[in-house]
Amino acid sequence: MTETLKIAIAGLGTVGASTIKLLQAEPTHGGSGRNIEVVAVSARDRTRERGVDLSGARWFDDPVEMAGCDADVFVELIGGAGGAALASVEAALTSGKAVVTANKALLAEHGMRLVGMAEGANVPLLYEAAVAGAIPAIRTVRDGLAGVPISSVLGIMNGTCNYILTRMEAEGIGFDECLADAQRLGYAEADPTFDVDGFDTAHKLAILASIAFTTEIDAGAMNIEGIRGIEPADIAAAAELGFRIKLLGIATMTEDGVDQRVHPTMVPRGSALAETSGVTNAVSIRGEAFTELVLSGPGAGGMATASAVVSDLTDLARGLAPRPLGRPASSLLPFRKPQAGGHRGAFYVRLPIADRAGAFAALAKNMAAEGISLEQIVQKTPHRPEHLPPLDQQTVVLVTYPTDESALNRALAAIEAEGIVVRKPHVIRIAQTL
Amino acid sequence: MTETLKIAIAGLGTVGASTIKLLQAEPTHGGSGRNIEVVAVSARDRTRERGVDLSGARWFDDPVEMAGCDADVFVELIGGAGGAALASVEAALTSGKAVVTANKALLAEHGMRLVGMAEGANVPLLYEAAVAGAIPAIRTVRDGLAGVPISSVLGIMNGTCNYILTRMEAEGIGFDECLADAQRLGYAEADPTFDVDGFDTAHKLAILASIAFTTEIDAGAMNIEGIRGIEPADIAAAAELGFRIKLLGIATMTEDGVDQRVHPTMVPRGSALAETSGVTNAVSIRGEAFTELVLSGPGAGGMATASAVVSDLTDLARGLAPRPLGRPASSLLPFRKPQAGGHRGAFYVRLPIADRAGAFAALAKNMAAEGISLEQIVQKTPHRPEHLPPLDQQTVVLVTYPTDESALNRALAAIEAEGIVVRKPHVIRIAQTL
Repeated sequence: MTETLKIAIAGLGTVGASTIKLLQAEPTHGGSGRNIEVVAVSARDRTRERGVDLSGARWFDDPVEMAGCDADVFVELIGGAGGAALASVEAALTSGKAVVTANKALLAEHGMRLVGMAEGANVPLLYEAAVAGAIPAIRTVRDGLAGVPISSVLGIMNGTCNYILTRMEAEGIGFDECLADAQRLGYAEADPTFDVDGFDTAHKLAILASIAFTTEIDAGAMNIEGIRGIEPADIAAAAELGFRIKLLGIATMTEDGVDQRVHPTMVPRGSALAETSGVTNAVSIRGEAFTELVLSGPGAGGMATASAVVSDLTDLARGLAPRPLGRPASSLLPFRKPQAGGHRGAFYVRLPIADRAGAFAALAKNMAAEGISLEQIVQKTPHRPEHLPPLDQQTVVLVTYPTDESALNRALAAIEAEGIVVRKPHVIRIAQTL
Repeated sequence: MTETLKIAIAGLGTVGASTIKLLQAEPTHGGSGRNIEVVAVSARDRTRERGVDLSGARWFDDPVEMAGCDADVFVELIGGAGGAALASVEAALTSGKAVVTANKALLAEHGMRLVGMAEGANVPLLYEAAVAGAIPAIRTVRDGLAGVPISSVLGIMNGTCNYILTRMEAEGIGFDECLADAQRLGYAEADPTFDVDGFDTAHKLAILASIAFTTEIDAGAMNIEGIRGIEPADIAAAAELGFRIKLLGIATMTEDGVDQRVHPTMVPRGSALAETSGVTNAVSIRGEAFTELVLSGPGAGGMATASAVVSDLTDLARGLAPRPLGRPASSLLPFRKPQAGGHRGAFYVRLPIADRAGAFAALAKNMAAEGISLEQIVQKTPHRPEHLPPLDQQTVVLVTYPTDESALNRALAAIEAEGIVVRKPHVIRIAQTL
């Protein structure tokens, strides 16, 4: 165990450069007694200044070619579900190298195949950095709660969305303005779809759910709704009701399968998730034996993500080789999506309705017809400058008692059919007990 | 790896019984492919009903004798820093058994010797359950942040104290009444010294600090102050100032050593630690690379603690054997306590002073003489029923700007020497940036 652990790093963005900085700054490498040496690197642009000394590393233009070099560990920090990331990880596993990756899209879409390859080659495949940045979410579910039944895993797993929602609330501004600002500050990509439409959260959730519930990874079987539909009016209403709106990934073990969902959720103020602001992430894990564990910390950023990469490398330097999913892939259950019928819970509904006699009665009638009880009904007239004529529409905000999502959807369709709704109703789930 | 992992459990209180329940309920044992069988048990009272089936286990009246049986793992849940716990763990390590323990006092006082024995015998010594119950604090520091520099570890690590402080605030009642109630409800021991005077927190902190800062465990070199001195007036004043009072264990890496302290601290409302209420624990870990991680969850209770015991057993069943302190004990630095000079920070001071001319001026003069600037001065006359004569004393509450603890102590001694202080001043540190 005293020989050098030789690593090859593919992708030298902020995470790659930060990983090298952390490795160079820590001479004892977690007390493993082994030197960790970066023997090879690969990136698109050889000339870019990255603030780290790469003179000792062999340069590869092609990460797939690098995967065949004489390193012990291949560190994939390229990103993306396919392309060079997939090809190089496959090549590295085929050549018998351990792989450390921060790539949630890759694992969410090709995880089971890659895990199978790693197990077949008897090499580790570690990916702590793929979920929630510096938060040791993977280890906590895989090891810290190993052998202890888990009932749900949920959390704020996308810093971009949480940053936008936090600013919308703090400054009362709209989604578009907030997104533009986040892009200017580097908290959101030029193409923000992946983050703000919930796909990034979905990938992370699918990985966590697999380990928590010992089922195969399946990112396809998921209802995904992002935060584009959230308006300042919703955030203000949430505040009045004692909630905050957060984009949550939620995986719950049910009697007939694993319910995986990503959607904006109203969470009670004062709860750990509601108080998680800005780019911070938080993961909540529940089980009968341990009630609830909450882990919070920076979910993104070069150094934060690199610290998770380095923890995986230190495991390898120490000679620890946990299985990719904690247990043999062959012992995992196939992923089962629960039967339709949907979520049961309380809902917030914002309905822009025509301001005409009978509209309110039609609304109440259709809710009652589906057996939906209303906890709160707030009727609001939008604020208009005095020199403008009054609008002929109003916004009605409803809060339901717990009901079936399918019943609510039928009621809303019936209300729309009455022609009293000016725009599509906006529904946000309420988590009473987070 | 398909043979049965045989374990012997010493101590069948709530944690022991809960551990057996969790093991019996989880047939796949974390996907290890190994059966975990309780082959031997030991406890004081053989006849007590524990709600678990012990028919397959051999009974030992003497845990030291059991340590020599043919089990693979000795699970010590007896408790206490010496006595049967120490003797049986030593015997188990001597006989080459892996040891899993929940015993913080044992590790804080004899940790280095036991770690040396375990390393000498090349067997694991695991103790996730010893710190913060179900929260994977040990793993997070030992593995999840391995190779990443840590600057501080601090937290709420005693559920009894946090329960008492939470109730004192919620109900405005005094320490003694709260303690009696906690004892009645089973949240505090008949002899509460160990918890309320901070020793339990100190033990846990010493263990965490050792792993975080790669120094030998030293629970002796610590300033420890418990919560007996906290009065409702302090809690009310904290609320007015925007803080909550929490008993924190705080370990910080300084230039000349590891500063370990246990004392009541005012933490800003809205911070994760301030919002940790009741018997919940929370651990905050900081480092430059990852800013701050916060882990919260149940810090005590049979099932919560058992879930940590089971995670260690699952590591062993999976064939993972992390080193007790993450790295070889021989590579640890000797514990170094920082030079005297004490803590620098802002302080809250409650001074019951005589209500006479000049008292206030004397107070201000002595603070100024030590260069201490005051951020707030609040003068309060205790509430008295109208039929009683007015008191001849007042309470002055001061909040200082950051200052050296030694300067404050000199100023308070000078103020006391002036004869204007009716009772000893009460000082609480303020953590501005938690």
